[in-house]
Amino acid sequence: MSASPIPALITLTTDFGLRDPYVAAMKGVIRAICPHAMIDDLSHAIPPQDIRATALFLSAAIPYFPPGTIHVIVVDPGVGSERLPLVIRCHDQFLVCPDNGVTTLLLQSDPGCETRIIENPDLVRPSIHPTFHGRDVFAPCAAHLAAGRPFDALGPVLAHPVRLELPAPRRDADGTLHGEIIHLDRFGNGITNIPAAWLSNLQNARVHCAEHVFNGVHQAYAQAAPGQAIALVSSTGTVEIAVREDNAAAMLGLSVGSPVCIKQA
Amino acid sequence: MSASPIPALITLTTDFGLRDPYVAAMKGVIRAICPHAMIDDLSHAIPPQDIRATALFLSAAIPYFPPGTIHVIVVDPGVGSERLPLVIRCHDQFLVCPDNGVTTLLLQSDPGCETRIIENPDLVRPSIHPTFHGRDVFAPCAAHLAAGRPFDALGPVLAHPVRLELPAPRRDADGTLHGEIIHLDRFGNGITNIPAAWLSNLQNARVHCAEHVFNGVHQAYAQAAPGQAIALVSSTGTVEIAVREDNAAAMLGLSVGSPVCIKQA
Amino acid sequence: MSASPIPALITLTTDFGLRDPYVAAMKGVIRAICPHAMIDDLSHAIPPQDIRATALFLSAAIPYFPPGTIHVIVVDPGVGSERLPLVIRCHDQFLVCPDNGVTTLLLQSDPGCETRIIENPDLVRPSIHPTFHGRDVFAPCAAHLAAGRPFDALGPVLAHPVRLELPAPRRDADGTLHGEIIHLDRFGNGITNIPAAWLSNLQNARVHCAEHVFNGVHQAYAQAAPGQAIALVSSTGTVEIAVREDNAAAMLGLSVGSPVCIKQA
Repeated sequence: MSASPIPALITLTTDFGLRDPYVAAMKGVIRAICPHAMIDDLSHAIPPQDIRATALFLSAAIPYFPPGTIHVIVVDPGVGSERLPLVIRCHDQFLVCPDNGVTTLLLQSDPGCETRIIENPDLVRPSIHPTFHGRDVFAPCAAHLAAGRPFDALGPVLAHPVRLELPAPRRDADGTLHGEIIHLDRFGNGITNIPAAWLSNLQNARVHCAEHVFNGVHQAYAQAAPGQAIALVSSTGTVEIAVREDNAAAMLGLSVGSPVCIKQA
Repeated sequence: MSASPIPALITLTTDFGLRDPYVAAMKGVIRAICPHAMIDDLSHAIPPQDIRATALFLSAAIPYFPPGTIHVIVVDPGVGSERLPLVIRCHDQFLVCPDNGVTTLLLQSDPGCETRIIENPDLVRPSIHPTFHGRDVFAPCAAHLAAGRPFDALGPVLAHPVRLELPAPRRDADGTLHGEIIHLDRFGNGITNIPAAWLSNLQNARVHCAEHVFNGVHQAYAQAAPGQAIALVSSTGTVEIAVREDNAAAMLGLSVGSPVCIKQA
Repeated sequence: MSASPIPALITLTTDFGLRDPYVAAMKGVIRAICPHAMIDDLSHAIPPQDIRATALFLSAAIPYFPPGTIHVIVVDPGVGSERLPLVIRCHDQFLVCPDNGVTTLLLQSDPGCETRIIENPDLVRPSIHPTFHGRDVFAPCAAHLAAGRPFDALGPVLAHPVRLELPAPRRDADGTLHGEIIHLDRFGNGITNIPAAWLSNLQNARVHCAEHVFNGVHQAYAQAAPGQAIALVSSTGTVEIAVREDNAAAMLGLSVGSPVCIKQA
C-alpha cells in the first residue's frame, strides 16, 4: 500500500501504573532518541513486581507482533542490584528487560533465542539512577535499536538468562491430568496451565476445581446458559473455567494456585 | 503541511482492561498486517460486557474523528454464539464490532449507514478461537481495511443490525420532561438523557432528582460555589447534575437509572 | 536513519480516567485537524482536579521529551470560569493548559518561558462548551500547533501565569533539613521534597519520618533486605522512603504531607 519504509515499533509493558510519571519519562527518553518510532502501550497494570504474571502476559501477546518489534519490559524488583540488563532476540523480535525470568515462556517457545547484556554506554543514558533503569537503561537502549543500532553492538552474549520455575501440569499413569489456576482475568475467568491438547476427548472429560465438577470441556461461553459455570478451551489453548456473562472467580471461589484435576473417561 | 499520504487510523474500544494480555494480542495482530497504521486507544475500561455503556461512550467520541477512521469495538458478551461480526460504515467511518447494539446511537445519528457481515476468510485469522474474536476476527479485519482492502470485500450487506432499546426521555402535555441518569462519570457528574434543547427556558426550569431540586439549568460548573450542587448543560448537550469541585453521585446519592423530572414554568 | 521529517508529537495528561469518553473525544478532535501527529498518552489517572499532583507529575516527565513536543494538560477544576487558556513555551516545548498552576515547577526550571493566551478563534472549535475545554479549546489548539500554526498566532503574551505555592524544604542553622512527603507512588514509596544534594554526607544522615528513623541515605533498593525499610535517593533526586519489595506507605503509615526531618552529623 505504501512505499515508505515500515516504521520501527516499540512496545511498553510495565508494572508502573499511570498515576506516577515513570511511563511518561520513558516515553520522553524514547522520543528524544527515535522520534519516528511507533510506541504501543501493552500494559502498565501488571501487578507490582509480579515476574510470573509478566511471563504469562508476554507469552500470550508477543508472538502476534511482527519481526523486528522491540519490546521494553520493566517489571524489575531487583533494580539497582547485580541483576543484569538484557536484550533477547526471540521470535525474530527484541525483548529489552531485566534478567529476572520475565521472558521464561518466550525462551521456551523459541530455542533459537540469543541474549546480550546491555554494556555499551552509548546506548544508555549518561547517568544511570539505580532505582529507575526503565528510564535510564531500557528505554534508551530500545530507542537506539529502533534508530538502527545493531543487536551486536549492545554487549557480550549471555548463555543462560534467568528462567522461572513455573508450575507444570502433569499426567498420571491412569490419564488423570493435574494442574492449577495460573491467572484470573478481568472477567473473573480462571485460566489453568493444562493444555487442552492433552485431553484425548474434550466431551468426556470431568474437570474438578474448588469442589466444583464440570462435565466436558467446551469451545465457547455460549454453550452455557447465562449465569452457568462451564469449562472450556481458553484463547491460549489451555483449559479455562468461566461463568457465562458473570465472574467465575467470585462465584466459584477461584484463586491463582487453586488445584485443577481432569479425569478422562 | 506534509505531502505524505494521511496514515490509516485504527482506534480500540474494549472492556478488556489492561491487566490481561487481550489488548496487547490485538495490537500485535494489527501491527503484523498493517504496520503503518496509527493506533489510538479510546478506552479499555468499559464496564465488563456493558453494551449500553459502550453505545453511550461511542456516541460521545466517534463523531469527532475524521472520515476513514477505523474503530474496533470489542464489548462482546455473545462471543462464540450466533451473533454476527460486522463492519458498519457510519459517519464516513468504519465500526468493526459484534452485532449486539453497541452502535445503536451512532446508527440513529446517521441514516445513511451501511452494514456488512464479516464473512471473507482472507480478512480474519486462519483459525478463529470462539472466545476471542477481538484477536481473531475484529483486529485482523480492521487492519486489512487499514491496509486498503475495500469495504465491499468483507461480505454481504446486513439490512438491520441489532439496536438496543434505550431509555427515552419524554415530554408531558403540560411541558414537564421525564428522563433518567444514564451515566455517572469519573468526577461523579450525573449525565441525563434529557436534551437541554427541549427546555424552552433554561433559567426558569426546576430539575427534580433523588429528592433534590435545582433551580435553573446553568452553563458552567463555575456558576455554583465550590461544594454546591448545580444542574447544567453537559458537554454532549443533555442536562447534567454536578457538584462543583466535588462528587455529585456520592453527595446526592445518584445512580444510573435515577429518575429525573424537569418542570418548566 | 530516515530522511522523512520528524513527525509532530502531541502528549496528553488529564484527570479524565478512561471509563468516560472525554479522552477519546479529544483524540478525535486532534486527528481531524492533524492526522500525521503522533499522540502519546502520558497519564489519564491524575487524581481528579489535583493541580499540585499534576505539577509534580509534569516536572518528572516533560524535561525528557525532545524540543517541539506539544503537551496537552487538562486538569481543570476552573473550567468555564474566568481562568485563562494558555500555551507556554518552556524547555523548548509547548504546554497547552489552563492557567491554574499545573506548570509551576516547569516554569521554575526554565526562566526563559514565554506564555500566550489562546484567543485566536481559528485555533479552537467554533462552539466552545463551558464544561469541556479539553475537547473544544486545548485539543484543537495543540493540533493546530502540530499542523504548523506558529506560537505567535495564538494570542497576546501573559506576563505572569498562575504559580502554586508548593511546600518548600528548608535548612536550619544547625544543618537539619525539614521537608515532607509530597507523593506516594504506586509501589508505596514516599517521595519527599528534600533534595539529596542538600546533604553534605549521605551515609551519616539520619532521616526521621512518621516515628521511624533511617540511618543513611542509600542509592538503591537492593541495599536493604527484602521487607526492610530504607531511605534513598529517588529517581528525581530527592530523598525517598521505601521498603524493599513492599509498600512503605502501608507498612510505615506514610501520607502526603507527613513531615520529614534529616539530621546531619
